Amino acid sequence: MKLNRLLIPALLLYAGFQAEASRPGEPIQPIAPPQEINLAKSELGKKLYFDPRLSKSGFISCNSCHNLSMGGTDNLKTSIGHGWAQGPINAPTVLNSSLNIAQFWDGRAADLKEQAGGPIANPSEMGFTHELAISTLEGIPGYVREFELVFGSPAVDIDKVTEAIAEFEKTLVTPNSPFDQWLLGDDDALSAKELAGYELFKLSGCIACHNGPAMGGNSFQKMGLVAPYETENAAEGLAGLTGIDADRFKFKVPTLRNVELTYPYFHDGEAETLAEAVDVMGRLQLGRTFSPEETEQIVAYLKSLTGDQPSFALPILPPSTDQTPRPNPFGN
Amino acid sequence: MKLNRLLIPALLLYAGFQAEASRPGEPIQPIAPPQEINLAKSELGKKLYFDPRLSKSGFISCNSCHNLSMGGTDNLKTSIGHGWAQGPINAPTVLNSSLNIAQFWDGRAADLKEQAGGPIANPSEMGFTHELAISTLEGIPGYVREFELVFGSPAVDIDKVTEAIAEFEKTLVTPNSPFDQWLLGDDDALSAKELAGYELFKLSGCIACHNGPAMGGNSFQKMGLVAPYETENAAEGLAGLTGIDADRFKFKVPTLRNVELTYPYFHDGEAETLAEAVDVMGRLQLGRTFSPEETEQIVAYLKSLTGDQPSFALPILPPSTDQTPRPNPFGN
Repeated sequence: MKLNRLLIPALLLYAGFQAEASRPGEPIQPIAPPQEINLAKSELGKKLYFDPRLSKSGFISCNSCHNLSMGGTDNLKTSIGHGWAQGPINAPTVLNSSLNIAQFWDGRAADLKEQAGGPIANPSEMGFTHELAISTLEGIPGYVREFELVFGSPAVDIDKVTEAIAEFEKTLVTPNSPFDQWLLGDDDALSAKELAGYELFKLSGCIACHNGPAMGGNSFQKMGLVAPYETENAAEGLAGLTGIDADRFKFKVPTLRNVELTYPYFHDGEAETLAEAVDVMGRLQLGRTFSPEETEQIVAYLKSLTGDQPSFALPILPPSTDQTPRPNPFGN
Repeated sequence: MKLNRLLIPALLLYAGFQAEASRPGEPIQPIAPPQEINLAKSELGKKLYFDPRLSKSGFISCNSCHNLSMGGTDNLKTSIGHGWAQGPINAPTVLNSSLNIAQFWDGRAADLKEQAGGPIANPSEMGFTHELAISTLEGIPGYVREFELVFGSPAVDIDKVTEAIAEFEKTLVTPNSPFDQWLLGDDDALSAKELAGYELFKLSGCIACHNGPAMGGNSFQKMGLVAPYETENAAEGLAGLTGIDADRFKFKVPTLRNVELTYPYFHDGEAETLAEAVDVMGRLQLGRTFSPEETEQIVAYLKSLTGDQPSFALPILPPSTDQTPRPNPFGN
C-alpha cells in the first residue's frame, strides 16, 4: 500500500516527463532509435538481407526491391522479380516496418519474421524454395559458423534465417527527421510553410489514418472511401484473405515516414508525385479538394519526414565453396 | 653534376629499401593501398556505382554484376542483364581492376573510365543510353549539386560520370592478404602447404602469366596454348577486335587476387571450382597434369590471396524529384 502511494506519483511524474519530451498532445510521436537489438543476430541478418544466393538466380536479394540506398524501396511502380517477372504490387518500404501492425499491403504476415520468408519462395520474386535456400546456406561454412555463434547450434533452418533478417530490419528505423526535431522541441526545425502543412494535415483529417510514430502502418483502411479508386491493378487488399466483399481495397495504411524517398505511391504505384498522392487522398478519402497552395504546404510538410537513413558498412558475404549448390538463373 | 653524384646513390638506397620492404626477388608484389584519391570524386562515383537509375529499368547498377559484397563479381557463369538477358561472358571482378593494362576480357577499353560507359549503354546489360542516363542525373538535384562540388560546374555529362565511377573503382584494392603479409616479411602468415603451393605455382610456370601485384591483368594470352580450349561460349577474345585469326581466344589474363571469392572461373565461367581451374590451366597452358596433392597445394596457396575487402558505408542516393525521368523496366 505504502509502495503504491509512492509508485503512482512516480509513474505520473514519469508519464509527464515522457509527454514533455515531445510536444504534449501531438498525435504523432518521434521515431525512437533501435532498442534491444541482438547485434550478432542483426549482423547475420544484414548479410542474409544482402545475399542474392537466397534467390534461385543468385541475383536477387531482399535489398534488390527494398533497397536501403533508396528509402528501402525500389522506386518502381511494381517490382522486377525472377526471370524479369512484373510484380503485382508496389514494394513497400522496409524502413520503420517494425512499427507496422502486420506486414504486406494486405497484412497477410503477422510480423517481419513471417514476412521475410514470403519473397524467397514467391516464384515471381526470388523464385526459390525455403528448402533450396537452406541447403545453399548449409553449404557456406562462413554462415554455418555464424548461425552457431548466434543461435548456439550450427543447424540452419528458415525459422532462424527469417528471425535474423527480422532482427536486422528492426534496426532500420529513421529517427531525427526535421519534423521529429520539431516534435522534440526545436521550434526552428520546421519552416512556416511546413508547419502550415502540418496544421492542414491535422485539420483536414489526414491524421485520422496517418498517426502514431510511423504515421501509418497501424490500421487497415479502404482505398476510395468517399469516391471509388480506379485502377487496373488486380490487388484486392484484405478481401483477398477474408473473401468478404466489404474488405475489397482495404489496405494497410502506408507509413509516411521518408515518403519523399519512397515514390511512386499507393499499392499500385500509380501516383508518381507527392502532389498527385495528396490530391487523390484528399478527394477520395476526405472528400476535399486541396488548393494548389494547400497541396504545396502539405507536400512541404511531408518532406520534413525524412529521417536519418540507416548507416552501416556494406556487408561482405561468406563465399560459397565447392560443395555449395550453385544458382540457376536461366534454367528451369 | 654534384647533385647527380648525391642523387644516384640515394635513389639506389631507396630502391634497396623498396626491395627489402617486400621479399627481394619475388615476382609478385604486395597490393598497395589506394593512392592519391580525390575523395569527393570517389564518393560521387560510389553513389553512381550503386545507382540503378543509370539503367533503363531502374533496377540494375554497376554493383548488380560487380557486387562488392561478393568479391566484386556476381558469382554467375555469365551475368543477368536488362529483361533477364543472358550475358555473353563472365563478369570480371572490379577488385584491383585499376591495376589492369586494359579493361574487359578482350581489353577493348583502355581504362576504367572508358569501361564504365560500356555496360550503361549495352542493351543486354543496363539497357540504357548515355543521353538518357545523363538526363536522369540532371533531374536529380542532389547529384547536380555534387557534380558542381566535384567538377566546379553543375553540368552533368558521361565523361564526368565515368571519371567519378573510375575514381571510386581506384579505391577498390584489397591489400593485406595472408600472402601479402608473407611478402612483407611475416614468415608465419602462410602455412607449409600454402608455401608449397606457391613454390609449385612458380616452378610449374603459372607465374609466367600471373605475376605483378595483381597476379594477372598485365598481359593478353591465348586460352589453350598447349592443347585447345573447348567451349560453347562465342567470345573470340582479341580476334573480335583485330580480326586476326591468331588472336582468337587471346584474353586478358585475369587477376588471381581474391580468386576464392570470384568463382566461377574463365571467360566462359565454365570452371566451377578452383581445383578444376588449376587442372585445366595446368593441362592446357602448361602441358602439365598436376597430381591431386599438387592441385590441393596450389588451391591452398590461391586462397591465401584474399585481401581486405573494401569497407565503406552503403551510400544513400539522392532522391528523384517530380521532374526526374522515370525508369522503364517493362516497356519498349
